[in-house]
Amino acid sequence: MAFDPETLSYDARGLLPVIAQEAETGEVLMLAWMNAEAVRRTLETGRATYWSRSRQAFWVKGETSGNVQELVELRVDCDRDCLLALVRQTGPACHTGARTCFFTAVREGEEALVEGSGGSI
Amino acid sequence: MAFDPETLSYDARGLLPVIAQEAETGEVLMLAWMNAEAVRRTLETGRATYWSRSRQAFWVKGETSGNVQELVELRVDCDRDCLLALVRQTGPACHTGARTCFFTAVREGEEALVEGSGGSI
Repeated sequence: MAFDPETLSYDARGLLPVIAQEAETGEVLMLAWMNAEAVRRTLETGRATYWSRSRQAFWVKGETSGNVQELVELRVDCDRDCLLALVRQTGPACHTGARTCFFTAVREGEEALVEGSGGSI
Repeated sequence: MAFDPETLSYDARGLLPVIAQEAETGEVLMLAWMNAEAVRRTLETGRATYWSRSRQAFWVKGETSGNVQELVELRVDCDRDCLLALVRQTGPACHTGARTCFFTAVREGEEALVEGSGGSI
């Protein structure tokens, strides 16, 4: 069946959450948002393209930082309201400079730095 | 620093997205939603507990199906508006019986079944 971004389920803002996962290592890097046009652009260009809720604009990941995400495969979940983007991440995914945005763990009720994540808390 | 679920950033509905990832394999299983109380219950019980948007009720994953998610570690992202739950999944994570909800890939413009996902399209 041909894939049509319009057949996905978007929220009231016209967005759905997209999980970016490093294709080689399986590390979850970040969660961001796409509208139908961002889904289309991501597939057409092979570069992860999100919708920035704060800037209300398309956001080609790494366009200014160089930390691009090359799309390896886009996957759709069972309810068609969430996407999983398998990517090859250049440089850190997180704006803080950490490799992943998920560098903080909750351990025994305390916030702790995930070893090897490149983050700092 | 002590972790307080109230310090996370929730959306207008009081929810944030939670990515469930199989701790051993790194496979992304599903995305669901939690409010502050669900975060608290998940940490206290060691069982992933979401907020069902359709039923408007707490949803202890696997409570009826037996396909529970034992929490290995909860992680917070840099913006504190998304969580990553590393879990040990019993049985399939997806209500369709697939191991992961992300069993559909977009390949050359077509929807295709991800091999070994246990899904069907």
